[in-house]
Amino acid sequence: MRDFNEITATEGVLKSFDSIENKRVKVLMGSIVKHLHEVVKETEPTFEEWLKAIEFLTRTGQKCDERRQEFILFSDVLGISMLIDTINNRKNNNETESTVLGPFHAPAPDIRFGDNIAHHVKGEKCLVKGKVSDINGKVIPDAIVDVWQSGPDGLYDVQKENNVVDLRGKMKTNNNGEYFFKTVKPQFYPVPTDGPVGEILNLMGRHPFRPAHIHFMIKAEGYVDLTTHVFIDGDPYLDSDTVFAVKESLIRKLNDAIDLDDNTQCKELTFDIILEKKI
Amino acid sequence: MRDFNEITATEGVLKSFDSIENKRVKVLMGSIVKHLHEVVKETEPTFEEWLKAIEFLTRTGQKCDERRQEFILFSDVLGISMLIDTINNRKNNNETESTVLGPFHAPAPDIRFGDNIAHHVKGEKCLVKGKVSDINGKVIPDAIVDVWQSGPDGLYDVQKENNVVDLRGKMKTNNNGEYFFKTVKPQFYPVPTDGPVGEILNLMGRHPFRPAHIHFMIKAEGYVDLTTHVFIDGDPYLDSDTVFAVKESLIRKLNDAIDLDDNTQCKELTFDIILEKKI
Repeated sequence: MRDFNEITATEGVLKSFDSIENKRVKVLMGSIVKHLHEVVKETEPTFEEWLKAIEFLTRTGQKCDERRQEFILFSDVLGISMLIDTINNRKNNNETESTVLGPFHAPAPDIRFGDNIAHHVKGEKCLVKGKVSDINGKVIPDAIVDVWQSGPDGLYDVQKENNVVDLRGKMKTNNNGEYFFKTVKPQFYPVPTDGPVGEILNLMGRHPFRPAHIHFMIKAEGYVDLTTHVFIDGDPYLDSDTVFAVKESLIRKLNDAIDLDDNTQCKELTFDIILEKKI
Repeated sequence: MRDFNEITATEGVLKSFDSIENKRVKVLMGSIVKHLHEVVKETEPTFEEWLKAIEFLTRTGQKCDERRQEFILFSDVLGISMLIDTINNRKNNNETESTVLGPFHAPAPDIRFGDNIAHHVKGEKCLVKGKVSDINGKVIPDAIVDVWQSGPDGLYDVQKENNVVDLRGKMKTNNNGEYFFKTVKPQFYPVPTDGPVGEILNLMGRHPFRPAHIHFMIKAEGYVDLTTHVFIDGDPYLDSDTVFAVKESLIRKLNDAIDLDDNTQCKELTFDIILEKKI
């Protein structure tokens, strides 16, 4: 095209996509360009503002390494990750809702019914249990329940330098569809704020906290995989999770309990899970 | 917010911007989030597509260094840089139109009327001259004319390893508002294709070429700075410049001419420039 101007701009760029063979790429690139042009037309950025955006994106890419994904964090704090999760996990019945995977999933050691997953942290003991079933209440034995969480210091094992696996476990449900493990009470924590996304949160006057939660990934033959969290009732950040991942249906109370193995007082949380049949 | 869903998502994230003090940041972030959410809702990306986008952005940031700005290149090939340029340089009268700065501007040596700027390349000799005036034809002496271009191999000096300044010059217009320099005929060239943006162009079935041009940056006291190119008539890529920077009003013919200093045959290009008064 010649004579690119505010009226012809978007159409001109979209025309340059005419020879895209992959229809899906065409749809995606078309939507991205259309909306990025809309942002420019709506806000009319100065050259300096545009350059700041370029620099922000560059620094965000350069903050990423094997242990850190700053662009996923950016997607998270803008609610984009959660929107992608929601669109890809529409509920049909009473199945347990999904929420974001997050950046801290890693291979977990196999554990048995009742094992403890918190070895290298100090915290309030907490028993976690539940039942996996289908939407009609039929229990699902041998479902794989993979759990991970941060410690009372707000850090996941992979965020620490020592490379010791902790606060993770992978177990199978028993013949009654039940799972049970011991851990420490989860605590709210901040997402990493020492990078460009931290600067943006600061610029926006937003706090970086996520309410206390335990991650769950559940797989069972014949059922749709489920990635979700259980949140703790009463957490101060349930209404302002910085990554927008809270769903009312995923909040559970921490009750007082007794650990029967050693007769000590502790907390207890019950989180039953309902899976959707694969079609 | 709790219960983030497809209906409440965008409003929920925008609500988290409530405490942004800087009004401009609020407008910019609001528009960006609204439109990125629209892209997700329109195209419903799979988790894998979202991850590919994350990886693309990460690699684009990591391709940048002191000599290379891959995010500017991405902005260029989507027409965003040109849209920003257009919005910030609306024409009021008959002043010369602007076009993109590009990533290759660098300090240039001072030259005198008639000097040659092409020292370390071989190519067809070309005389470039013109007059700088205001919108009423009043000539502007002492305007600073800063020019730069790629060589016949399609490369700017800063893209080469040897660090030798070439094909750049900075001069002042004479008492008649005229400038004049010698160089080699510019040639069309590809933008860098060995990075993520090259992959995207390839995926979109688009060529990476820019039509032949010489960059100009003109400053004169009392006038608005002008950044533009002159393009060469007949170039095969005038209608498909990969960064959308061509304007009909900036295309000039290369005519046959004689270099009077040594009586050799060469090419000649005339590019008169009209500046806008600063208000």
